[in-house]
Amino acid sequence: MLLELRPEVDYLEKQNLLDRLKRMGFQVVESDTNILAVIGGIDSLVVQDDFAALPQVLKVHPLTANFKLASRQTKPSDTIIEVKGVKIGGDELFIIAGPCSIESREQLEACAKVAKEHGAQALRGGAYKPRTSPYEFQGMGVDGLKLIAEIGAKYGLITVSEVMDASQIEVAAQYLDVIQVGARNMQNYALLNELGKVKTPVLLKRGFASTYHELLMAAEYIMLSGNPHVILCERGIRTIETFTRNTLDLNAIPSLQQLTHLPVIADPSHGTGVRSLVLPMARASVAAGAHGILVEMHPHPDQSISDAKQTISFDTFAELCTQVKRIKSVM
Amino acid sequence: MLLELRPEVDYLEKQNLLDRLKRMGFQVVESDTNILAVIGGIDSLVVQDDFAALPQVLKVHPLTANFKLASRQTKPSDTIIEVKGVKIGGDELFIIAGPCSIESREQLEACAKVAKEHGAQALRGGAYKPRTSPYEFQGMGVDGLKLIAEIGAKYGLITVSEVMDASQIEVAAQYLDVIQVGARNMQNYALLNELGKVKTPVLLKRGFASTYHELLMAAEYIMLSGNPHVILCERGIRTIETFTRNTLDLNAIPSLQQLTHLPVIADPSHGTGVRSLVLPMARASVAAGAHGILVEMHPHPDQSISDAKQTISFDTFAELCTQVKRIKSVM
Amino acid sequence: MLLELRPEVDYLEKQNLLDRLKRMGFQVVESDTNILAVIGGIDSLVVQDDFAALPQVLKVHPLTANFKLASRQTKPSDTIIEVKGVKIGGDELFIIAGPCSIESREQLEACAKVAKEHGAQALRGGAYKPRTSPYEFQGMGVDGLKLIAEIGAKYGLITVSEVMDASQIEVAAQYLDVIQVGARNMQNYALLNELGKVKTPVLLKRGFASTYHELLMAAEYIMLSGNPHVILCERGIRTIETFTRNTLDLNAIPSLQQLTHLPVIADPSHGTGVRSLVLPMARASVAAGAHGILVEMHPHPDQSISDAKQTISFDTFAELCTQVKRIKSVM
Amino acid sequence: MLLELRPEVDYLEKQNLLDRLKRMGFQVVESDTNILAVIGGIDSLVVQDDFAALPQVLKVHPLTANFKLASRQTKPSDTIIEVKGVKIGGDELFIIAGPCSIESREQLEACAKVAKEHGAQALRGGAYKPRTSPYEFQGMGVDGLKLIAEIGAKYGLITVSEVMDASQIEVAAQYLDVIQVGARNMQNYALLNELGKVKTPVLLKRGFASTYHELLMAAEYIMLSGNPHVILCERGIRTIETFTRNTLDLNAIPSLQQLTHLPVIADPSHGTGVRSLVLPMARASVAAGAHGILVEMHPHPDQSISDAKQTISFDTFAELCTQVKRIKSVM
Repeated sequence: MLLELRPEVDYLEKQNLLDRLKRMGFQVVESDTNILAVIGGIDSLVVQDDFAALPQVLKVHPLTANFKLASRQTKPSDTIIEVKGVKIGGDELFIIAGPCSIESREQLEACAKVAKEHGAQALRGGAYKPRTSPYEFQGMGVDGLKLIAEIGAKYGLITVSEVMDASQIEVAAQYLDVIQVGARNMQNYALLNELGKVKTPVLLKRGFASTYHELLMAAEYIMLSGNPHVILCERGIRTIETFTRNTLDLNAIPSLQQLTHLPVIADPSHGTGVRSLVLPMARASVAAGAHGILVEMHPHPDQSISDAKQTISFDTFAELCTQVKRIKSVM
Repeated sequence: MLLELRPEVDYLEKQNLLDRLKRMGFQVVESDTNILAVIGGIDSLVVQDDFAALPQVLKVHPLTANFKLASRQTKPSDTIIEVKGVKIGGDELFIIAGPCSIESREQLEACAKVAKEHGAQALRGGAYKPRTSPYEFQGMGVDGLKLIAEIGAKYGLITVSEVMDASQIEVAAQYLDVIQVGARNMQNYALLNELGKVKTPVLLKRGFASTYHELLMAAEYIMLSGNPHVILCERGIRTIETFTRNTLDLNAIPSLQQLTHLPVIADPSHGTGVRSLVLPMARASVAAGAHGILVEMHPHPDQSISDAKQTISFDTFAELCTQVKRIKSVM
Repeated sequence: MLLELRPEVDYLEKQNLLDRLKRMGFQVVESDTNILAVIGGIDSLVVQDDFAALPQVLKVHPLTANFKLASRQTKPSDTIIEVKGVKIGGDELFIIAGPCSIESREQLEACAKVAKEHGAQALRGGAYKPRTSPYEFQGMGVDGLKLIAEIGAKYGLITVSEVMDASQIEVAAQYLDVIQVGARNMQNYALLNELGKVKTPVLLKRGFASTYHELLMAAEYIMLSGNPHVILCERGIRTIETFTRNTLDLNAIPSLQQLTHLPVIADPSHGTGVRSLVLPMARASVAAGAHGILVEMHPHPDQSISDAKQTISFDTFAELCTQVKRIKSVM
Repeated sequence: MLLELRPEVDYLEKQNLLDRLKRMGFQVVESDTNILAVIGGIDSLVVQDDFAALPQVLKVHPLTANFKLASRQTKPSDTIIEVKGVKIGGDELFIIAGPCSIESREQLEACAKVAKEHGAQALRGGAYKPRTSPYEFQGMGVDGLKLIAEIGAKYGLITVSEVMDASQIEVAAQYLDVIQVGARNMQNYALLNELGKVKTPVLLKRGFASTYHELLMAAEYIMLSGNPHVILCERGIRTIETFTRNTLDLNAIPSLQQLTHLPVIADPSHGTGVRSLVLPMARASVAAGAHGILVEMHPHPDQSISDAKQTISFDTFAELCTQVKRIKSVM
């Protein structure tokens, strides 16, 4: 339920109303307009007329979406998440680049240098790697986090890396500017709840067979636990096509932007799984309206420990940056 | 198998070789370079060394793809199909627009006028409609074909419409510049074979759960029967997502362009099934590298007899044309 | 709309009512109970109260399903299709067996002998083969049809084979007891309409990415054109799993049986695409309630021209028949 | 790599070999035959000839599957997991029944009584519930675990419940005989690794869009961490069909049984999501060869807090037990 307040309501009257709602057992979230989202309790038992009768309330709006905090209905204006002076979700294109796995200082620093040079604002690199097989490289762990923090600071880049379990959040929050939740963990609710308790923005990737609705519900878990800074990321779904590893679903970009106020970015590296498709699909992502893109690159793509097939070279990355900015400029 | 001829081979020597191959039971297709595709026979029984020993032959290349005529390996340069002076498959963006079903002269003419005005080169409209239910409108039939031919001529637009059965081809070829094969008939081999016997270019839509490989094999049926003028069209596939009617798979655009020399276009109307997504996904299609787009529009979208949910208005179409041309201009 | 007639309505009164409905522009189908299905016209414009007021009518039931003739609502009792004394759709398990493609008299006769010996009632074999590639074996055509008719007659087996185009129906109807529509042609509406005009029962296979609803709508096309003898066949759908060629969807068996009165069988050969899975999945099909099964076998499975991977040997077929009958006996 | 030992190798010689392999940095797992699975190290660098030269070794077998401990190649005989005297994975059909969520002592005890009466060996009930929405009932938590332990003991039933996070394992292991990993957590590797450190058998559900290979890889994580007692469960995948909530993929049963020695059961409740399909699909699961089934039931199915649509009544459960045992008896 949304309560639209009278324009003339002052600070004290508003606090009064907030206190009252909390005593009644509701959780209340203020959105950017003069609107309060009232959550919890059992909506169907709530006599909406009672709320409408409150002196501070202009109108009561029932909520149609199952997700509330993430819904554009609750907050019509775009959410802009500011990290180290970069505004994510606004007009500027947000580019995240880096290796799939952090392998060494040399490798990560080479990526950071190239990322910065071509206008990316963020450096990504996996420290904890979710691998289908337990026999594959599982990542450098905390050492990887320390490395990315150090190199991110040196080059003035936002740092992004993935956590796979609630126990990793505390240390990750020390070293990272943005914490990523991978596709396989999109419905790991224990993890989502714990991420709601930190202030670090969360990059939430769509599960490889999850619907838009489920992605928004996963965002809702984080937001309801207290962290409103969620960036959604389309990264391809499983379909009947086998030429590509995944099918990047760009319908998701404008669809999600209609449903939610959160920033929405695209990952053409995982979304295709094929090196030669990353560049054209990065262009298409931006043309579809994505607030940003996330791409994997490596100084020597063929030697990448993980996901070599989809990793692009520095030259391709340079070309990609030129082309996506050109697309962005005519939007 | 591909035979690469010596550069100095003259016309007579080439005819000689062609005759010899045909007597041996092979079908031979000349591609745009100095290359002959030798088809049929049983490849594995062919002693490739024998061919390599022919005086006209420089080199024998085995074919790796199962599709031969459609493969970029056989013909490295892009195929450009020229219809009424319009070059499809080249640098110019090819825009097809019109109603899902032809309903009346007024409706179709209104569409033609707007299509022309905003730079579309082709008018589409369904005369024979494949409908899931036998109780739904099945189209105007031949009367619809006559109408689109007349209005296409009046406005200088290429005409495109769908046939559903081999028996409709003869009459369709009289009235249409391009014959469409719908997604449901992509593997209707009897239809494909018959379309190979006419000269009219064919717009072949990807089946809603068909792979790129199967689409190329369907094109191969048409080409092997004698018609090399095939335009491929991505129109969305069925996935786990239910918010959109289909998932427009834009990975298909650059993927197909790597695999084949044929023109590849996208249909963001069927590919999304949602009116508000057509415009952003048309932009994304062009950014992904599509040679053209196909969109459904209607003077009164909500009154469209078929597929009303995905049909855009004339105003949206005008805006769409402006935006896709802007994207195209920076590619 | 269904009209439930008063129990005391006699023949003349019923004819009277039928005439009246036809004059009003409706198509009327009598189902096995005292119920008339009234089709066509525009349901929403029909004043149902007017029908309820007719002296012969006890009650008017609106139809909830989009498919009408195929719906169990229209005809609550199971449809039993009798072919050469065999009742398909009743208590007896209907077994169809034979090679994927008819290759020779010897091959087909060997299959017929084994089929008969182990209790199958029908012989299948492809004469026109829908192949993804135009370079693969396309079938023996009419010669194949003649062969199966001759051998079917000799062994007292129902003959089943596929047609791919309306032009093949006339000759197929001469030689076959049951005409099959393959998965790729499930929405070839021209073919379905023409099959409605013959009396030969139709074995309609589910498209590899079609829903139950679409399968029933395809059956509706055949029935509405005049042929009520439709047998539905689940044959596997495309999913994210790649170990099997298709995923046999046995949920379809009880689901379809709730939705329709038509017989429903399963094809564990195409439904798995893996030889070693055919036997256990045949058992599971029968346990799920299938009215019959269709399996591909060959005297020398590894030498089968088509679909060798999923073709079982005569020994496996013998064992399969023993096991499925045992399951059937305890149902 | 598998080392097949000479039959005459005695205890001391075997220990010798084991010590040697461990010093070389390999992890060694003994399987039930005279075979050692040698894991880790980098297979490609290992000179297999060196191993073949060891006096205790008869033959060296390379491993073809990526999963090693779970592979039937490593351990050809079926694994039988014994819990409270019940053998899971052998000839006896293992039936798990109970409510989706534990709601109250009365509800759970009513289910236990009926489960025991009709021959089920295990009681299931959710204490921690993974829910798509944070606004839905999240389960009774530890109180639910205590309740199921108490009631399981009273009725002599094995207790089964789900954990969603590594932090819940310690307490869960106190109260449960079998710990379930739900579909959404199948690739939560942190959770899988921790489950490898307890001795409690794990019921591992297939992810709703995971392949057989990925399911086996998830089992491998648990086994490699030290817990060999893994029961696999097919519970339906997402497909293009929308009539059912999921598509129970029974091909998985015989396929997995060919690939692995672990027990494989089926969950027709989640696998269909439709109450009326649970009974026929339970029959089909057993006919496909499942070692067991898991079904959700409730004293008042329509009042079930979660998954009411697929929950069966006690009467249906009784009928289901009768029917599946009849099928099992003829296998």
